[in-house]
Amino acid sequence: MISLAQDKHDHLYMHRALELARKGRFTTGPNPAVGCVIVKDASIVGEGWHQKAGEPHAEVFALRQAGTQAKHATAYVTLEPCSHQGRTPPCVDALINAEVARVVIAMQDPNPVVSGRGIHKLHDADIEVRVGLFETAARALNPGFIHRMQTQLPYVRVKLASSLDGRTALSNGVSQWITGAAARADVQVWRAQADAILTGADTVLVDNPRLNVRPEQWPNGIEKPLFFKQPVRVIIDGKNRIHDDLRLFEVETPVFVVRTTEAPASRHRHCHEIIAKADSQGRVDLHDALKELALREINLVWTECGAQLAGALFNAQVVNELVYYQANKVLGSDARSMIALQELTQLDDALSFNVLERRMVGEDIRVIAQPMK
Amino acid sequence: MISLAQDKHDHLYMHRALELARKGRFTTGPNPAVGCVIVKDASIVGEGWHQKAGEPHAEVFALRQAGTQAKHATAYVTLEPCSHQGRTPPCVDALINAEVARVVIAMQDPNPVVSGRGIHKLHDADIEVRVGLFETAARALNPGFIHRMQTQLPYVRVKLASSLDGRTALSNGVSQWITGAAARADVQVWRAQADAILTGADTVLVDNPRLNVRPEQWPNGIEKPLFFKQPVRVIIDGKNRIHDDLRLFEVETPVFVVRTTEAPASRHRHCHEIIAKADSQGRVDLHDALKELALREINLVWTECGAQLAGALFNAQVVNELVYYQANKVLGSDARSMIALQELTQLDDALSFNVLERRMVGEDIRVIAQPMK
Repeated sequence: MISLAQDKHDHLYMHRALELARKGRFTTGPNPAVGCVIVKDASIVGEGWHQKAGEPHAEVFALRQAGTQAKHATAYVTLEPCSHQGRTPPCVDALINAEVARVVIAMQDPNPVVSGRGIHKLHDADIEVRVGLFETAARALNPGFIHRMQTQLPYVRVKLASSLDGRTALSNGVSQWITGAAARADVQVWRAQADAILTGADTVLVDNPRLNVRPEQWPNGIEKPLFFKQPVRVIIDGKNRIHDDLRLFEVETPVFVVRTTEAPASRHRHCHEIIAKADSQGRVDLHDALKELALREINLVWTECGAQLAGALFNAQVVNELVYYQANKVLGSDARSMIALQELTQLDDALSFNVLERRMVGEDIRVIAQPMK
Repeated sequence: MISLAQDKHDHLYMHRALELARKGRFTTGPNPAVGCVIVKDASIVGEGWHQKAGEPHAEVFALRQAGTQAKHATAYVTLEPCSHQGRTPPCVDALINAEVARVVIAMQDPNPVVSGRGIHKLHDADIEVRVGLFETAARALNPGFIHRMQTQLPYVRVKLASSLDGRTALSNGVSQWITGAAARADVQVWRAQADAILTGADTVLVDNPRLNVRPEQWPNGIEKPLFFKQPVRVIIDGKNRIHDDLRLFEVETPVFVVRTTEAPASRHRHCHEIIAKADSQGRVDLHDALKELALREINLVWTECGAQLAGALFNAQVVNELVYYQANKVLGSDARSMIALQELTQLDDALSFNVLERRMVGEDIRVIAQPMK
């Protein structure tokens, strides 16, 4: 039984731990963002957050800062402490060795193989454990990591931007600057959260994008990450059409090219090849391609692509989230479409969404929605 | 010079007058909605609002209620009192005869022929006049009346509803219930404010709509009008294709059919014919058609039509306001378009909008915007 006073304390410090965890959300991939606070006699004696894969976990930073004050203290952690030896020693052991009296955990480890083991070990060491405080907020910190652990697929965000009438470009292909500068800056924040940016060969060949994070376009009002971790670029290129002379290759991070088993081998030097199954029409099976990305520890995929690939992703039911920007313009019915779907014959077959958020980003509206399946 | 205390009083009572005027916004057409408050010794002694064309004006109701207390009182009116004999005697004379000391007016008469005459007459009768308090709010009460007075054209609102990707129907034509029940109820309020509902012959022939106000669908939370004034229906039917056997004719109010000078005369009994010029492609010249409607004292046109007519209205630059509902669905690129425009070759030619309001109506988003010209 937790007293009301204790419960209020728990809320306060877990809130702080979540705040710390958020600092890592652009840099910890493929690890989750985690925050930790150590509290002794109603004051914080240690704080930490995970900054980068391979470096110490949040608990280690916090325990170091707390030193001997960790003894009989309470630790607040946004994710169940790890119980296994990874690139760093298990945090559960560190907490036990520091002789903390109590551990408050926002959510269990989402990996079904290890979930609950850390908690079990703490119990065995006679440490009091509370689990599930602010679980929703903790889950929201790491949608990609959690999704990959639970489904062996990355979490896929599809970005779309269109005019008021759902058009992305004129019939002649002209498409620059449909949405405003604020929306374009906002995109940098989404890119920075992703482990991979996904697009199709058509977009690469026509628009010749770099698909990297541009620190100089970072929006005001959002704290810059500790460092800019560039996502890998993933190109769905079923027929192996991309070539060496593209701006993609001006950026250091890897380019993965996904082709089917039937396509010819890669002709270009700089790419990592991913070979996916072909679907019934000989195109890349997107579910299979994403499974391959998950095997490469890609948690979160940010997609910026044309109507064909967007439609194919929705049709394959692999989209977890839509991030949609809408400009105050009308381009008319000759202009290019936003999403190509299989032709529908009844309205019940339309894609439906749960809208999570609608807000203005500069002059444009931004809608965040999840497909209903 | 108005004292601060006086100014505060003026705000308070004009606010009340605007509130009264709003009660008439569904019923006064072709007259404007007007409210009036008579104040004596810091208390309201008379209130009135115009209810219906042919019946007394707001000032008359308020003066009747005030009786002899109107003497030396202040009258607050949302529109300059009329100075000419219309269907009712001039209100300016009524105010002078009642010996009010002061008149506060939100906005001058928008009719350039009579604007300022009422104020002049009040001045001549040694009545103190203040003009322009809450003018923006007063103008917003009567967009149609003001626009017709100033341009000899009705104020045109175009309603559009689409999926997230700008589609209005499947390729096979199925289109019922893209937006939700709340949006459909909201449409009743817009229809009720209009003097005319405009559509094209295609919509009439394919969907067979009644295009009337449905009191039973009136949304909760919006006060019902004193009575339901049904707008006339206007059908753009350049080739004279509509026939007698349509649901339009199940409703009592007139149907106006607009054809060009070149089209054959009307074949159906129940319609009023409007003959407009033909444009260069032999279609109804929409500017000319609207001019004809203004001559028939139609202030506000509410348009519910297909992509072709919507596009033609935007191309003709006769649209004053867009009311756009967007559902959380995606229909894909085979589905039908929202607005057919002339094919654009540069983004600068896109229609651009000033967004006045964005809000949720049930599950759908509603955007109110004005085209920028």
